[in-house]
Amino acid sequence: MELLEQRILRDGVVVNADVLKVGSFLNHQIDAVLLDALGAEFYRLFSSCPINKVITVEASGIAIAYVTALRFKVPMVFAKKSMTRVLPEDVYTTRVESFTHGRIYDVVMSKQFLGPDDHVLIVDDFLANGCALEGLLDLTRQAGATVEGIGIAIEKGFQKGGASIRAQGYRVESLAIVESMDPETGKITFRSAC
Amino acid sequence: MELLEQRILRDGVVVNADVLKVGSFLNHQIDAVLLDALGAEFYRLFSSCPINKVITVEASGIAIAYVTALRFKVPMVFAKKSMTRVLPEDVYTTRVESFTHGRIYDVVMSKQFLGPDDHVLIVDDFLANGCALEGLLDLTRQAGATVEGIGIAIEKGFQKGGASIRAQGYRVESLAIVESMDPETGKITFRSAC
Repeated sequence: MELLEQRILRDGVVVNADVLKVGSFLNHQIDAVLLDALGAEFYRLFSSCPINKVITVEASGIAIAYVTALRFKVPMVFAKKSMTRVLPEDVYTTRVESFTHGRIYDVVMSKQFLGPDDHVLIVDDFLANGCALEGLLDLTRQAGATVEGIGIAIEKGFQKGGASIRAQGYRVESLAIVESMDPETGKITFRSAC
Repeated sequence: MELLEQRILRDGVVVNADVLKVGSFLNHQIDAVLLDALGAEFYRLFSSCPINKVITVEASGIAIAYVTALRFKVPMVFAKKSMTRVLPEDVYTTRVESFTHGRIYDVVMSKQFLGPDDHVLIVDDFLANGCALEGLLDLTRQAGATVEGIGIAIEKGFQKGGASIRAQGYRVESLAIVESMDPETGKITFRSAC
């Protein structure tokens, strides 16, 4: 998506070969109008699917999942990083490893809000190694829900997540796929749309 | 706000004298269309103020702050619960006590995204004892930013937060103020709009 690629080129910061900072518009400060355009694009891409729920994981996925759900006029549910003691019979639980934060945490979603009748679109801001997404897919399997597709704002195409999840048969639509980043020059190359 | 009060009466669950669960539409599963109406109401209430930024704290404030920012067509910034090691010179830091989670955590916001030129609207889903809000106010003071107002979806009027923050001179607009809750009968009484 041209709009997002241009914004990454303008405001993204290549910290090192693996880390692209987009906190000025995507996941700390959020450009509300840009995100609305990304939500509209996910709607265009998936509008023929019978989606009745959008799901994501806290925290940086929430705004983009929300604005996508608003386009579909369906509820959004976000999986929570578990901090409170909850009864396991009330929630689906999965473990997610965060490379950014260097830790593993439990992620939970109330069984009340996801079940076998649900057709979900999973939305997240980033796809890199795919750990957060594997966690969300695990929750949908526990719930018996149908995954209609996965919408990602920025995919780091040089990390394994995207290929691994597509190989499982899921439809993944990433609005920008970074093919390579050069920390020396700051140059960012995108995978061309086909 | 009638729409929100009716929804609380229909779907809110009084767990005990202090805890009102609204996870089916406000802070776990999110009714996207309802939240959009709440954002529109915040816009109506504060549209005469020179707001150039909406701020909140992760995670449950993000969606409602986002949709409000979208109405104002300004950026939204959310304070993060600190998990990564960050250099203190790069961020404002404050401590917030969470009664729900029974712990104290550091909350951070990049100095890059909040400064003396900013006129902010603070938005959150809940106001009870006011700890999260005091934390956000502390961040704005560190930044030298001007607080134009505070928009809250549900205020628990029988807890001290609202009175304490209004006593400091801030304009707080809560879309529903719960005056009392009876865990025996499930009855919820709202403070009448004046």
